[in-house]
Amino acid sequence: MAPEPQTLRIGVLHGPNLNLLGSREPELYGTTTLAEIEDRLRAAAEAKGAHLEFFQSNHEGTLIDWVQSARGRFQGLLVNAGGLAHTSVALRDALVAVSIPFVEVHLTNPYAREPFRRTSHLADVAVGLVCGFGPLSYLLGLQGLIAHLRAG
Amino acid sequence: MAPEPQTLRIGVLHGPNLNLLGSREPELYGTTTLAEIEDRLRAAAEAKGAHLEFFQSNHEGTLIDWVQSARGRFQGLLVNAGGLAHTSVALRDALVAVSIPFVEVHLTNPYAREPFRRTSHLADVAVGLVCGFGPLSYLLGLQGLIAHLRAG
Amino acid sequence: MAPEPQTLRIGVLHGPNLNLLGSREPELYGTTTLAEIEDRLRAAAEAKGAHLEFFQSNHEGTLIDWVQSARGRFQGLLVNAGGLAHTSVALRDALVAVSIPFVEVHLTNPYAREPFRRTSHLADVAVGLVCGFGPLSYLLGLQGLIAHLRAG
Amino acid sequence: MAPEPQTLRIGVLHGPNLNLLGSREPELYGTTTLAEIEDRLRAAAEAKGAHLEFFQSNHEGTLIDWVQSARGRFQGLLVNAGGLAHTSVALRDALVAVSIPFVEVHLTNPYAREPFRRTSHLADVAVGLVCGFGPLSYLLGLQGLIAHLRAG
Amino acid sequence: MAPEPQTLRIGVLHGPNLNLLGSREPELYGTTTLAEIEDRLRAAAEAKGAHLEFFQSNHEGTLIDWVQSARGRFQGLLVNAGGLAHTSVALRDALVAVSIPFVEVHLTNPYAREPFRRTSHLADVAVGLVCGFGPLSYLLGLQGLIAHLRAG
Amino acid sequence: MAPEPQTLRIGVLHGPNLNLLGSREPELYGTTTLAEIEDRLRAAAEAKGAHLEFFQSNHEGTLIDWVQSARGRFQGLLVNAGGLAHTSVALRDALVAVSIPFVEVHLTNPYAREPFRRTSHLADVAVGLVCGFGPLSYLLGLQGLIAHLRAG
Amino acid sequence: MAPEPQTLRIGVLHGPNLNLLGSREPELYGTTTLAEIEDRLRAAAEAKGAHLEFFQSNHEGTLIDWVQSARGRFQGLLVNAGGLAHTSVALRDALVAVSIPFVEVHLTNPYAREPFRRTSHLADVAVGLVCGFGPLSYLLGLQGLIAHLRAG
Amino acid sequence: MAPEPQTLRIGVLHGPNLNLLGSREPELYGTTTLAEIEDRLRAAAEAKGAHLEFFQSNHEGTLIDWVQSARGRFQGLLVNAGGLAHTSVALRDALVAVSIPFVEVHLTNPYAREPFRRTSHLADVAVGLVCGFGPLSYLLGLQGLIAHLRAG
Amino acid sequence: MAPEPQTLRIGVLHGPNLNLLGSREPELYGTTTLAEIEDRLRAAAEAKGAHLEFFQSNHEGTLIDWVQSARGRFQGLLVNAGGLAHTSVALRDALVAVSIPFVEVHLTNPYAREPFRRTSHLADVAVGLVCGFGPLSYLLGLQGLIAHLRAG
Amino acid sequence: MAPEPQTLRIGVLHGPNLNLLGSREPELYGTTTLAEIEDRLRAAAEAKGAHLEFFQSNHEGTLIDWVQSARGRFQGLLVNAGGLAHTSVALRDALVAVSIPFVEVHLTNPYAREPFRRTSHLADVAVGLVCGFGPLSYLLGLQGLIAHLRAG
Amino acid sequence: MAPEPQTLRIGVLHGPNLNLLGSREPELYGTTTLAEIEDRLRAAAEAKGAHLEFFQSNHEGTLIDWVQSARGRFQGLLVNAGGLAHTSVALRDALVAVSIPFVEVHLTNPYAREPFRRTSHLADVAVGLVCGFGPLSYLLGLQGLIAHLRAG
Amino acid sequence: MAPEPQTLRIGVLHGPNLNLLGSREPELYGTTTLAEIEDRLRAAAEAKGAHLEFFQSNHEGTLIDWVQSARGRFQGLLVNAGGLAHTSVALRDALVAVSIPFVEVHLTNPYAREPFRRTSHLADVAVGLVCGFGPLSYLLGLQGLIAHLRAG
Repeated sequence: MAPEPQTLRIGVLHGPNLNLLGSREPELYGTTTLAEIEDRLRAAAEAKGAHLEFFQSNHEGTLIDWVQSARGRFQGLLVNAGGLAHTSVALRDALVAVSIPFVEVHLTNPYAREPFRRTSHLADVAVGLVCGFGPLSYLLGLQGLIAHLRAG
Repeated sequence: MAPEPQTLRIGVLHGPNLNLLGSREPELYGTTTLAEIEDRLRAAAEAKGAHLEFFQSNHEGTLIDWVQSARGRFQGLLVNAGGLAHTSVALRDALVAVSIPFVEVHLTNPYAREPFRRTSHLADVAVGLVCGFGPLSYLLGLQGLIAHLRAG
Repeated sequence: MAPEPQTLRIGVLHGPNLNLLGSREPELYGTTTLAEIEDRLRAAAEAKGAHLEFFQSNHEGTLIDWVQSARGRFQGLLVNAGGLAHTSVALRDALVAVSIPFVEVHLTNPYAREPFRRTSHLADVAVGLVCGFGPLSYLLGLQGLIAHLRAG
Repeated sequence: MAPEPQTLRIGVLHGPNLNLLGSREPELYGTTTLAEIEDRLRAAAEAKGAHLEFFQSNHEGTLIDWVQSARGRFQGLLVNAGGLAHTSVALRDALVAVSIPFVEVHLTNPYAREPFRRTSHLADVAVGLVCGFGPLSYLLGLQGLIAHLRAG
Repeated sequence: MAPEPQTLRIGVLHGPNLNLLGSREPELYGTTTLAEIEDRLRAAAEAKGAHLEFFQSNHEGTLIDWVQSARGRFQGLLVNAGGLAHTSVALRDALVAVSIPFVEVHLTNPYAREPFRRTSHLADVAVGLVCGFGPLSYLLGLQGLIAHLRAG
Repeated sequence: MAPEPQTLRIGVLHGPNLNLLGSREPELYGTTTLAEIEDRLRAAAEAKGAHLEFFQSNHEGTLIDWVQSARGRFQGLLVNAGGLAHTSVALRDALVAVSIPFVEVHLTNPYAREPFRRTSHLADVAVGLVCGFGPLSYLLGLQGLIAHLRAG
Repeated sequence: MAPEPQTLRIGVLHGPNLNLLGSREPELYGTTTLAEIEDRLRAAAEAKGAHLEFFQSNHEGTLIDWVQSARGRFQGLLVNAGGLAHTSVALRDALVAVSIPFVEVHLTNPYAREPFRRTSHLADVAVGLVCGFGPLSYLLGLQGLIAHLRAG
Repeated sequence: MAPEPQTLRIGVLHGPNLNLLGSREPELYGTTTLAEIEDRLRAAAEAKGAHLEFFQSNHEGTLIDWVQSARGRFQGLLVNAGGLAHTSVALRDALVAVSIPFVEVHLTNPYAREPFRRTSHLADVAVGLVCGFGPLSYLLGLQGLIAHLRAG
Repeated sequence: MAPEPQTLRIGVLHGPNLNLLGSREPELYGTTTLAEIEDRLRAAAEAKGAHLEFFQSNHEGTLIDWVQSARGRFQGLLVNAGGLAHTSVALRDALVAVSIPFVEVHLTNPYAREPFRRTSHLADVAVGLVCGFGPLSYLLGLQGLIAHLRAG
Repeated sequence: MAPEPQTLRIGVLHGPNLNLLGSREPELYGTTTLAEIEDRLRAAAEAKGAHLEFFQSNHEGTLIDWVQSARGRFQGLLVNAGGLAHTSVALRDALVAVSIPFVEVHLTNPYAREPFRRTSHLADVAVGLVCGFGPLSYLLGLQGLIAHLRAG
Repeated sequence: MAPEPQTLRIGVLHGPNLNLLGSREPELYGTTTLAEIEDRLRAAAEAKGAHLEFFQSNHEGTLIDWVQSARGRFQGLLVNAGGLAHTSVALRDALVAVSIPFVEVHLTNPYAREPFRRTSHLADVAVGLVCGFGPLSYLLGLQGLIAHLRAG
Repeated sequence: MAPEPQTLRIGVLHGPNLNLLGSREPELYGTTTLAEIEDRLRAAAEAKGAHLEFFQSNHEGTLIDWVQSARGRFQGLLVNAGGLAHTSVALRDALVAVSIPFVEVHLTNPYAREPFRRTSHLADVAVGLVCGFGPLSYLLGLQGLIAHLRAG
């Protein structure tokens, strides 16, 4: 009988405005709330032997603090930085500083929106990118991250 | 006798460094303090049947929190985002998320200053823009906002 | 008893196509005619001790002639240059040449329209800018201009 | 017997320097005069049950006046704006304001000339574009316009 | 009695996706099929003493092969390169290599669509350009081409 | 007992050079062959009640032919266009023409490679994008596509 | 005794705002009026056997009319187009159309002013350029033009 | 005996992620901790008659608050804004608002890193810049600042 | 006696329109045919102990197929990609995928032609570049390639 | 009797390749040699009470040395920097460092030549610019410079 | 007793116009002469066990010669390239060719001056950069260089 | 028996830093010295009836002097301008001024290095370009030049 794989600990980071999910522009972002997304993520993670912790903030600095505190606590991160993905060099620096592999996710497809959403300060240092599938983007990104960590 | 128009509730947002008004670079920004501006705004609003609440912060995240909390509390916003107007996609996202009409104001005329002040992440989603009149920019923006809300 | 403030003489310049107001693209520009705007402006000005003269032309050169003739006749100008705001260096030169403070106004919010409307040859030499409030943009710009002239 | 189609009224606008046709740079623009072009256009139009009126001016403002006066008089416009096609937002605004479908024509092929002729402020709001065929550009543009109006 | 003008032989090239005409995005491209367009073109050509041959392919290389084979077979070409107009230097090279005058046509007006449709690798080496009239663009382009060839 | 969901038919498109998988630059693309990827995709699809068909070509035109033939045969497409994602307007046009929802996938993370891989002619018309997870990118993209089609 | 050289007829064109010379921004443009400049130019021309005619307008179209009328009347033109130098393709077209050699002059040095004054639609089709010497720019440009015409 | 020079009070600001020094990417940033840097800075300052106070935060707004509070407390600032140097107009505005001379320092050489690190919103309003020497950058910047303040 | 060096096997790839050599724009490309170039290349190669195989196609996909098939068959490639050099990321990817050293050649000097010929998707992954010498470019490129392979 | 104006001392600087005048591309630069130009300049200068000294070098450094040595020796400089005008910041720095007014001259009209000749590192710090008149450019520039110095 | 550290040999390079220090634009560059700077540098170096040699030239080529001769003679270089920092690829090449670590220094803060001073061909291959402190920039750069060399 | 072809005289120009060959960055430029390259070039030239003269300098001005002196002495030039290829308009001007055909060579492949090496001020006026083959680039360029001169 094969040994149990080690339980992975993964942090999930939600950036500005994601706490509004379910009520914010539902025609664009859907009606699922962040709590519902987290429930689905938790269930999917546990089925694959992974434990998740969640964090949301509208504050760039608070997000950076949390990323810094992630060292030693998580083997991987799932990051939806919201609007900060396009503007924050400091958040990028924090993610690089802690050297934890991360996957970038977006609910919507930024390439189908305003031009300033076509650049990301995170994408070129991420493992990979999933966008455009609504809440499912998180679930797919989680699978990609777990596979990456198991393979590493 | 015509019925009284409904009292409008309007939030006024001041971004980074506006708390310094009156002492900061007076040759550029004048000697009126933020409290004095707020007094004049409150008087003007009440004369038009509107009630104002004010908020100032130097923190992008705190400003976003406040914008999120504005839903259901205000029918319109008057926003002087200071330097964040040129850099914050997350603040723009918050303003769009809460779907409250807002007017962008600036004390100075950004087109007569450094090139990086010529772009705004807020202007194309605002109702309108008033800039260059010192404290009066707020008062004119308030009139424009009230008219827009009454007409809407 | 305080002395009456001096009567201000202010010129109001309407550029190309503004004579069509009320019938041109009403979903964008509204149904108020230019004559109605002028009536409202005149009333507001007289209440503040200012006298207005109006001028509209579709001809860049005629607008420049009028700006040149404004020296000595007006203490301030209210300028809605329409499409010329984005293309005319010569109109800018005329406004600078006569050294009369002016405020730039637009009925619509150019930042929410085509990209070529995001640059103005007038904005950086104007006192201030008001846009996006329909006919009210003129009224707010007039207030800003009068306050600027009274303060000067 | 099928009913006669309604007679279409179409305005033809010639911009700056087109009055020189026949003598101006004949190696580039040919030796046909503007009057000869108009005769050929008139004949072609009448064969298709359309009536034409012509207008030429070297003045942007005069061209705008004429476009404004076109409302109610013409169902379609054929526009050769000459050099103004590349520089005039105000002429574009006039054409959009009167909401009359128009076709843009050029005698020469601007893509084979100087780089600044590769942008047009009219093309994206025109029905279509015909260029490079000398005087025939007008005739082809007229056919395209009539077909568009009959189909509309 | 005037001698019959020589019969012109003209090739008509349809690029990628034009075989879908009639069913592809009918709100944009209309319901006329490519076969119907070809019938109308053939009739118009014969009335002017011209004989047409048609070719469509979704393959850049196949289109280039055909252009190369056109030497000696055709005096002129009518080219709707579809999306390749914006990206193919090799097709341009083939058209220049065979030295056969050609007219560029498009069903829609590319200036009213995405920005990447505003550049063409063909336009500056074409005789002329017709766009925006639906199937009629081909017919007008054909007239322009025949006139150019008769005049040459 | 709930009724079986309808079997989905999904086409999977592999662009140029993907037939080399397993031997091409293994340090970048891994050692899994395309056949192995297809086996894994087929198994995953069948578990979700979807049937897949695969197609690979190094020829832009052949890929376009196949996309055109997909109408009526598939409800969704999974597209890894390889290098054509950055250069082919014609492939984009084909995908838009057939109006079949598609997901764009890449084995590697193009944002971590050469600058010319940062633009895609497909991304803004895709449902979503998955990249950077090696063969797993296809599997995640398939899940996203199926969820999108089931939700649609 | 050597024969008298032929009298040259030269047109001098002043563009928008040059009628203000002497009173407009004297710290930038000096206190000499346009009439005084014309007197000095006339004297200098007569000493060299040339006759001058002057024309000023603030209207692009009127300037173009005058340039068109210059054919057959003048052998050379001295052109200070003011702000139109940077924006008018139509004036450039007129100057090219009449095929009269011209020299571009400016009172100030545009390279030491705003960036939008660094491009000229006239410079590359002019014989030469003189700028930065105040009224003397006209006199130097006249000498250059006469020498060019005598040499031609 | 020469009088003792006045004790200078200098504030030292560390931006996002600098609290990680010593453990963050040591091959890039070295193994010295921020506390060790501060000890060395304090010793160097005291030897030159200067007193230092230190402040670190990952929050833009907290950094701005601190800069605002610096007025009257410090004669000079030593600023390592980390990633905010490239993105924060609000921090720049705060530094300009308090009118305290400051020196910008970086541990690494940003010109040898990613392109987005080549622009700084602080450099053009700083006294000077020191970068690339690891912790020594702070010490050199401190010397430069003290010399500037003593000379001022 | 020194041992014979190993016979090198080299593939020579000609892209779109090169089959026309000798008849296509002879003033630009000369009158030598592709067959004649191949004869000269073959002779030169055999004198240096190398065996050549030639391939020409106007189809990007066919060229990619051939490059893929080159693995194991050739030690080096001589590539004249014609117009595809400027547009094809997929051909670049194929050349990189097979890991065979190649030299880029052009008959003409692209730097002396249109601007869009100044960028190449091949040059930065090639061993070297030879251009501007007509058919001799191939011969010089072959020498460079052989020397590179012998040295490798 | 009016006092003699002071004799002006003016330095004339010729940059790289100007020593070739008369033989270098005569169709572009004419057949007059540099010595002949200097004779004509000297005569013109003496008639206006100015003394000239000439210097030519092909070495940027040598030209800078000479500019440095000009302090105290000349009141004005006439500078034809040749190709260095477009590239040399160091020569610009030298001219600014010695604070001697200078006029920039060119024999040809750089705006009618290659694009890289459209920028000058000297023009914005020069008194004025004369170009396009062949050797006469020097004479006109000299007049402009003398007038500037006499007025100063 | 600790062994004496090895004496370091360091070359100091001054580029164009630095020989003017003390008299050139003193409001910008101060009144200290280059000899005085060198005396201060020499004293500081000897206190740290380093020996300096100085070299100044206005000639790019002479500076390159000197850099080339530095191999084997110096362990580090202190380089103030003046205006050449922004334009000279050849000087950069020389510095890279000799593989001697160097620090770039500037007396003034180039980021607060003209835009063309914002790029440096040296900065990305330097150890570090110090600017804006007047002569002290050299001293700070020297300290940084010595620390780097001792650490290396 | 065929007459001996005329002996060709060819000048070979080496720009800055090429005198360091053999010791400068050997991993990039190899270990062959410039003298060895010249020996190989001389032998190859004599075998083809050509005589070579060599010149190297690190001084732009000295290189220009030598190019000027080449008139009448050489029928062709082989030019490796080093870093000056990317920056020197003056060297380009000298090469154009003397009207001697030249070939541009580089030891390395500049397209595989820094972006600023992708532009050349020489390439568009050269006969051809050879790069990337180390010392062999000179030999191939020489062959191309001789063939060009013999054909001319």
